[in-house]
Amino acid sequence: MEKHQAQLIALDWGTSSLRCYRIGALGKVLETRSFPLGIAQILGTAPETSRSDARQVFEKVFLDVVGDWIDVGPGVALIACGMVGSASGWCEIPYLEIPIDCRRLGDTLCAVRISSDRVLHIVPGLIERTDLPNVMRGEETQIVGALIASSGHFAAGKDEVLVGLPGTHSKWAFMRGSTIEHFETFMTGEVYRALCAHTILGRTMRQSPSVDYDSFDRGVHVTQEFTGEAGILSTIFSVRTLWLVGDLSPEQQPDYLSGLIIGHEIAALLRLEQNRRRSESTKLSRILLVGESALVARYARALGIYGRVEVKLIPQATERGLWFLADQAGLVPRTDRTHSHNYED
Amino acid sequence: MEKHQAQLIALDWGTSSLRCYRIGALGKVLETRSFPLGIAQILGTAPETSRSDARQVFEKVFLDVVGDWIDVGPGVALIACGMVGSASGWCEIPYLEIPIDCRRLGDTLCAVRISSDRVLHIVPGLIERTDLPNVMRGEETQIVGALIASSGHFAAGKDEVLVGLPGTHSKWAFMRGSTIEHFETFMTGEVYRALCAHTILGRTMRQSPSVDYDSFDRGVHVTQEFTGEAGILSTIFSVRTLWLVGDLSPEQQPDYLSGLIIGHEIAALLRLEQNRRRSESTKLSRILLVGESALVARYARALGIYGRVEVKLIPQATERGLWFLADQAGLVPRTDRTHSHNYED
Repeated sequence: MEKHQAQLIALDWGTSSLRCYRIGALGKVLETRSFPLGIAQILGTAPETSRSDARQVFEKVFLDVVGDWIDVGPGVALIACGMVGSASGWCEIPYLEIPIDCRRLGDTLCAVRISSDRVLHIVPGLIERTDLPNVMRGEETQIVGALIASSGHFAAGKDEVLVGLPGTHSKWAFMRGSTIEHFETFMTGEVYRALCAHTILGRTMRQSPSVDYDSFDRGVHVTQEFTGEAGILSTIFSVRTLWLVGDLSPEQQPDYLSGLIIGHEIAALLRLEQNRRRSESTKLSRILLVGESALVARYARALGIYGRVEVKLIPQATERGLWFLADQAGLVPRTDRTHSHNYED
Repeated sequence: MEKHQAQLIALDWGTSSLRCYRIGALGKVLETRSFPLGIAQILGTAPETSRSDARQVFEKVFLDVVGDWIDVGPGVALIACGMVGSASGWCEIPYLEIPIDCRRLGDTLCAVRISSDRVLHIVPGLIERTDLPNVMRGEETQIVGALIASSGHFAAGKDEVLVGLPGTHSKWAFMRGSTIEHFETFMTGEVYRALCAHTILGRTMRQSPSVDYDSFDRGVHVTQEFTGEAGILSTIFSVRTLWLVGDLSPEQQPDYLSGLIIGHEIAALLRLEQNRRRSESTKLSRILLVGESALVARYARALGIYGRVEVKLIPQATERGLWFLADQAGLVPRTDRTHSHNYED
């Protein structure tokens, strides 16, 4: 039984979903649960909630979804990442500033006291204060998980890695060793859905159960070529005009547009990477991808079309990151620490 | 009375509106009417309409809105441009292909017989059959009107002019003399509205009655600088992050986003212009702008920030273009032709 006893209850509590992990020794995931109880849904049910009321609402949801796990393991540690730590969440946790060494993240968890005298530790998000600031909440944990999962430890010295987290708002972190030096946000997923649902482009589309990779690739190629220089505001109109001239069917339109928009994201990303590299090494970064598998497959494909084949897909980055941060923070027993990962200090 | 007698009833019948002009000798506009009776609204009331039924619906609307003008001037000529000539309109008129000399456009009007034995002449739209095709319906007439209004005649020889028609779908025509050599479409207006109404960016915005040009300019500048290389999918996220850090108020957000998105359009346009010019002359084109005055003012401002100050705003391009094409087609008395414009054949 000892083997299956939980050492950590870990939550990825984002804008649109809540995922819960019961984790045992060495970070082994014993059970997972998923709910459509993101902070947007929770606030949607009571938009006028005051801050103190909001805390009670979040605590109630928390106990509803993992209360039974806590009851059977009263000594278990509790950790959460994501928008739960935002101004619209359970408790606003200040951002940490970029650049930051990921090995420091576990030292900075914020404790939220729950009425039953337990403590939930929330991972702070990150901010980059440049002319156009960038923020993330939750992705920092996935980045940690991806790095650990990729090599069992943080890369030594100055190895450059690009960690991509495609989604509603795609994040790309530019890493050097264990340090996040810079990150970017692309609103690709949200813009794609808005274009399909609320512009002329969606009117003739027909959704298909399978992915049409030929159409997807065709869209990516447009962004690579001379035609891509017209920019996304222009190229997307071809979803309609190619249909008008009989060269793109309603079933092909969704994946063609997906290829166009992801292709423009990749083109911009690689331009930024090149700008950063100019005065430094010429070696291309390894790329790690984290996210929903079908979406990540599209990104890997688009990156391949752009000649970037050294791409690794990382599953379970969130739970691995949460475990790692809890371990760093000393929330879980450290006896087996050297088995789960190595440190290079 | 002769002076105020109509020689032409001209319609600009687009997707979302119908504008009617009663035009007298020398192209003088005697009266205008405007209705929210674009083809989208007309079809929206009877989406399952068959083609023959649709013709009857359009004819009925036509007689409702200008029947009285026809009754008092039974000999008057009738002309229309815009989406009325599309597959979803009154009658589908085949596109003419680019490149095309505008002096030829008036020779190619399509006649639609109305039951009362009158004929409505519809201006054909244009298509450019490249890898990413482009189409326009209605804008070709505005381009003609802009060129005529700008200099009283078509430019001689190889003068390069860029004609911009900002709107839901902005069009930019690359002219050499009287020939449309190439054109581009940017879905700027429609994307802007979708972003405001259907993404996270709109959630914190507060609309203001006046234009905040400082915020608009700030957005345009972002697209010019190093930051602009991240592309529109990335830069638009700053609408949110600048607000998060207290550097952009809800009232400033709409015009800042407007500057960003129009700035990206101008950046792409000038990149395309430069690519076309590489192997040819180095002289910058004159720019003519046609459209709703507040929107055109934004474009002129953004172009100015990009160093393009030789920009001329052209009012009444549609009615001038319709008159010119009717004149070319011999639909109106030609006695005073030399007074209204000169030809250079």
